[in-house]
Order: sequence, then C-alpha cells, then structure tokens
Amino acid sequence: MSNASFAEPARPAPVAGPFSRVFARLEPHMAALDRFLRSQVSDFEPEIREMADYCIDTSGKRIRPALVFLSGWREPAAVSNDLVRVAAVVELVHLATLVHDDIMDEAEVRRNRRTAARAYGPVAAVLLGDALFSHALYLAAQFPTTEICLAVSASTRRVCAGEIVQTLRRGSTDFTRADYWRVIDLKTAELFRLSCQLGSQLGGNPPAYAEAAGRFGRHLGIAYQIYDDLADYFGQEKRIGKTLGTDLLSGKLTLPLLTLMDRLTGSERVALQEEIRGAHAPQLALRLRQMVEQGIFPIVAEAVQAEITSAAAALAPWGQLAPTPLLLGLCDVLQGQVAALQTPAGT
Amino acid sequence: MSNASFAEPARPAPVAGPFSRVFARLEPHMAALDRFLRSQVSDFEPEIREMADYCIDTSGKRIRPALVFLSGWREPAAVSNDLVRVAAVVELVHLATLVHDDIMDEAEVRRNRRTAARAYGPVAAVLLGDALFSHALYLAAQFPTTEICLAVSASTRRVCAGEIVQTLRRGSTDFTRADYWRVIDLKTAELFRLSCQLGSQLGGNPPAYAEAAGRFGRHLGIAYQIYDDLADYFGQEKRIGKTLGTDLLSGKLTLPLLTLMDRLTGSERVALQEEIRGAHAPQLALRLRQMVEQGIFPIVAEAVQAEITSAAAALAPWGQLAPTPLLLGLCDVLQGQVAALQTPAGT
Repeated sequence: MSNASFAEPARPAPVAGPFSRVFARLEPHMAALDRFLRSQVSDFEPEIREMADYCIDTSGKRIRPALVFLSGWREPAAVSNDLVRVAAVVELVHLATLVHDDIMDEAEVRRNRRTAARAYGPVAAVLLGDALFSHALYLAAQFPTTEICLAVSASTRRVCAGEIVQTLRRGSTDFTRADYWRVIDLKTAELFRLSCQLGSQLGGNPPAYAEAAGRFGRHLGIAYQIYDDLADYFGQEKRIGKTLGTDLLSGKLTLPLLTLMDRLTGSERVALQEEIRGAHAPQLALRLRQMVEQGIFPIVAEAVQAEITSAAAALAPWGQLAPTPLLLGLCDVLQGQVAALQTPAGT
Repeated sequence: MSNASFAEPARPAPVAGPFSRVFARLEPHMAALDRFLRSQVSDFEPEIREMADYCIDTSGKRIRPALVFLSGWREPAAVSNDLVRVAAVVELVHLATLVHDDIMDEAEVRRNRRTAARAYGPVAAVLLGDALFSHALYLAAQFPTTEICLAVSASTRRVCAGEIVQTLRRGSTDFTRADYWRVIDLKTAELFRLSCQLGSQLGGNPPAYAEAAGRFGRHLGIAYQIYDDLADYFGQEKRIGKTLGTDLLSGKLTLPLLTLMDRLTGSERVALQEEIRGAHAPQLALRLRQMVEQGIFPIVAEAVQAEITSAAAALAPWGQLAPTPLLLGLCDVLQGQVAALQTPAGT
C-alpha cells in the first residue's frame, strides 16, 4: 500500500465562488484543519490509510467546519485546537455520509474525482464510510467530557434518519411540504445546527448563545438546502457543476417541484405525478418551462429568504458578540448565491 | 408507521445448542438487555423506529453481550445497569455490521427472517446500519467518562478495517495465513476483546484483570472465527443452518482452504487458485472430498485449540476471580462445538 500521498504538503481546501470572501478570514483555521485531518490518517489501520486519505482529499467547500470556526470566533483570531478538532469531527461525519450517498446514487464523480464507491467498489465504500464515522466519534471522545460525543452521535443518527426517509419516499407523490421540511431539517440542518452550537460553546460563549447559534445554524441549513434544491432546476450547469433536473429524474420531490405541482391543473398534475412515480419518462424540458411560466423561482427564493430571516432573528439579541457579524455575513453570501442563479443568462 | 411491535412483551433472545448451558445462568441479564434494547427504539426518530425495532428483533445468539456479562460477573448475581448498557453497545455495533454485511453479501435471510436489506432495500439498509452505529456510540457516551466511547469507537473502526481488507482481497490468491489472522483479529476478535475488557472493568475488577480478560476475548474470538470457517466446509447444513462451501463460492480464502492449498500439487493447486479467482467454476464436491483425504479437519481444529489454549492461559493467574471459571466454561463450549462438527454423520 503506497504511502506517497502522506508526503504531500498540507494545503487548504479549494474554495470557489462567493464563499471565498468569508473563507479568506478562515485561511489559517482551514489550513490547521487540513493538517489535523491528514495527521488522523495514521490513526487508521495501515490497510485502509490510503482509502481514508483519498476520502479526506475529496472534501469540498468545508461549510460545516467554517460554521464551527465562525461560531467560535474570538479576537485575536488565534487558531483553537478544540475548534479544529470539532471541525474535523463534523467534516468526517459529513464525508462519511457523502461516501454512503455516492454508493446509493451510483455517482461516478464528486468534485472532479472518482467517488470512493467507484474507486474501491460499493462494498468497500460502505465499510469505509463506517470507518470514517467511527473515527469522527473517536475524535469526539477525546474531549474531556462526554458532552461532545453525546451531541455528535445523536446528530449523526438524526442525519441518517433524514436520509432514510428521503430514500424511502423517492418516487412517492404522497410527500407533503411538511415531509420535505422534516427531511431537510434532519439531513442537512442538523449538522449545520450542531456545527454552530458546538463552535460557539467551545469558543467560550454563554450557553444561551450556543443555543441561539444552534437555531441560527438550523435555519441557515434549511435555507441552504432549499437553495440547493432550487439550483437543481434553475442553476447554470457550468457554474454549479452538475446536470439540471436530477431530482425530477430520480423521483425526488423538492420544494420547486412541490410548488409546481400545486399550480398544475387536474390532468397535468396527474401526468407529473406519474413522472415522479416513474410510470412515465420525466419531461424535463416541459417541467423547466412550466416552472418559469408559473413563477416558481421567486416563490422558492422567498422560502429561502424566510429561513434566512429566521436565522438572523435568532442572533438579533447577540450583536455584541464576536461571532454574530461573521455568521450574519453567511446570510448575505447565501442571498447572493440565490440571486446569482438567475444571472446573467438565467434558465 | 405501525407501533404494534412495541407492545410485544420483552423476551430473552432465543438460544440454541451448547451455548444454552452457559446462557441459562444469564437469563435475567439477557432479559434485562432485551428490555433495554427495546426501550432504545423510542430514542430513534419516529420515522425509523419500526426499522430499528426490526433489526434489534433479528439479533442472534448474543455472544458478545454474554461475554460482557460473564466478564463482569459478581456474586450475588445481580443485574448491573452498566453491564446491560455496555452489552447493548457491543450488540448494536455487531447488529450494524450485520445489516451492512447482508447488503454486501446480498443475503436474503438471516436467522429465519428477511434481512433488513431485503425488507427495506439496500439503500435504506446502509443508512439504517449507520443509525444503529450512531446509537451505539450515543449509549457509550452516557457513561460518566469518555473512556467507553473512546474504546468503542476505536474498536468499531478496527472491525470495519478488517471487513474492508476481507472484501478487497476476495478472489485474490495472494492471501497468506498472516493476512487471514489479521483479518479475523480485526473483524471478529476485536469486538470479543472489547466485550471482555469492558465487562470486567465495569464489574469492578483490577485493570490488570480487564487487560487479561481482553486478551482472553481476543484469542477466543479468533478461535470462534476459525471454528466458524471450519463449519463452512465440515458443518452439517441442518445444524448450522446454512449452505456449505459459501466461502469457496465467494472466493474467500479461509484457513481450511489455505491449508488445502498448501497440500495440493502444482497443477491441482493452480486449478484451485483459478476457482478462487473466479476464472473457473468452483468444484465444491471435489474440494470437500480433498479436504477429507488431506486431513484438513484435524489440522484446522488444532488451530482452534491453540487459540483456546492461549485464551485460557491469559486467565491462568486469575483463577480466584468470579468471572474466570465462567469464561473458561466458554472454551469448553467451543471445543464441544468443534467436536460436534464431525458427529454423528460427519461430512
């Protein structure tokens, strides 16, 4: 088994787009995280180190670690070992879910590299995801008390529950807005919430602030997921780096499609339902056109905005604490990303 | 989602065969474990409770919990909440690995019920296994210190590493005895070791005893796995409840086949290697006959015995402690099971 990849110099994760402004401030923290994650590879059993290293290498924007660092921000901006450790925990949990997601979606590529499932086969990928989960909890257990471990394990279970519900309801038209909100609350917002709560707690903020930051993170996570689902229909393929309409093709009812469904008349509605159930081939071009005609974009964008407003409201009483303006800056970034979906060419 | 199964009365897991003697003593402990595991179902998110309950229900002989209870044995034989909790942790980790194993093996049935992968689909089963892992760590984090969580998460990672190596080496003839020992040390012996170590520790025994009990468990686990691999060729299908020769059919080199390989001459050896690589259809009947002719059974049985001897030796200085005679009783049980493989009809 080659150890060549261990010798590579540590480097911060690549960051593109509007997040870069926020992330510029986090450069030393992200570099420390990267060094820390790479140092963890040697804790894995020798036979699976190369694979663990491969997964850590494919990591993406590192939004969850950013939430940890921003929520725990103190001046002067020294890098805190506790924050780095907890950022590694949430990122490893996230990477583990990606490794398992890519098996299920039969994805070929993630962020310009073969997925672990393609590189090592689906069977090894199931186990590799398990090993990443285990290591995340192992790192969580290295804090002086069991508090972090309790929070992380409970969150992880909730993330899995959300993914299970989403999986089992694929192709089902009996899926309401309430179901949609519940799924994204579990599968996405839970880890955003945990990142903000643990970050602010470890940053030495009062418990009430950690609770408020957690609420902020939860709303931001819901907003982020709705934005992501919107981008699946209204994004520019080049910019978001994936094919449009994959949710329709895989029978996944997200907010844009739920909203369109509400606006279609009897027989058209039945036809769309049959496409979701897989009884008829999805008419993607037609559905994209109908979404424009029915004005789905502003309606869904408004739902993102409502969550952003709730996120900001959670922090309103805490303007004087150092993390607050930084976290609120993420709201601006997300608003900018939503706006960018329709510029310059739109759909 | 039906809650009907919650209303079922708690009942001890079914136990068959020679383990029943040892387990009779553990009846109140196993009943407490069963109640505890069932009570955990309500901690899962409502949408996945039925599935969690289904997995817990399919659990088997509960050997690992038995190791916990026996290692922590004290007179009078009261049921200890700490032991019940840690028994639940190791059993949930084991159940999670079974849920994931059954996906990979495309198994239809385990212990006379459909596997979770068949009942809910492979995708949900991946996530359900993850949720069971998470909950195991959540329970481990409920002890006053992080010690249990650290031990369990490190062990879980090692179990996964063992399974990964086994998976990646399937169909490979470049697999030595050393590789075989390493795989079973990780995939099976690790959780046996952990069960004995944590059980004796929580039972209030001295640290040196916990360490010795861990060594006992590790050797017993290796012995148990070699026995299990022997049963795949020499078992009686009715008694062990599975088809013979599945390891050969799936290209898995275990000790009986490694031993046969050593004894075959040039061209016969090449033919067997091609069967393992999947280049030729496995000639199971021929290989079973050759195993009898070459006297493979006593050689492999001797390897089981050597590990049992090492297990017993680990406890030799500790005869006066309450768990010791009970743990040594498991050695007798395993010896009896090995002997029973060839009686009355043999192969």
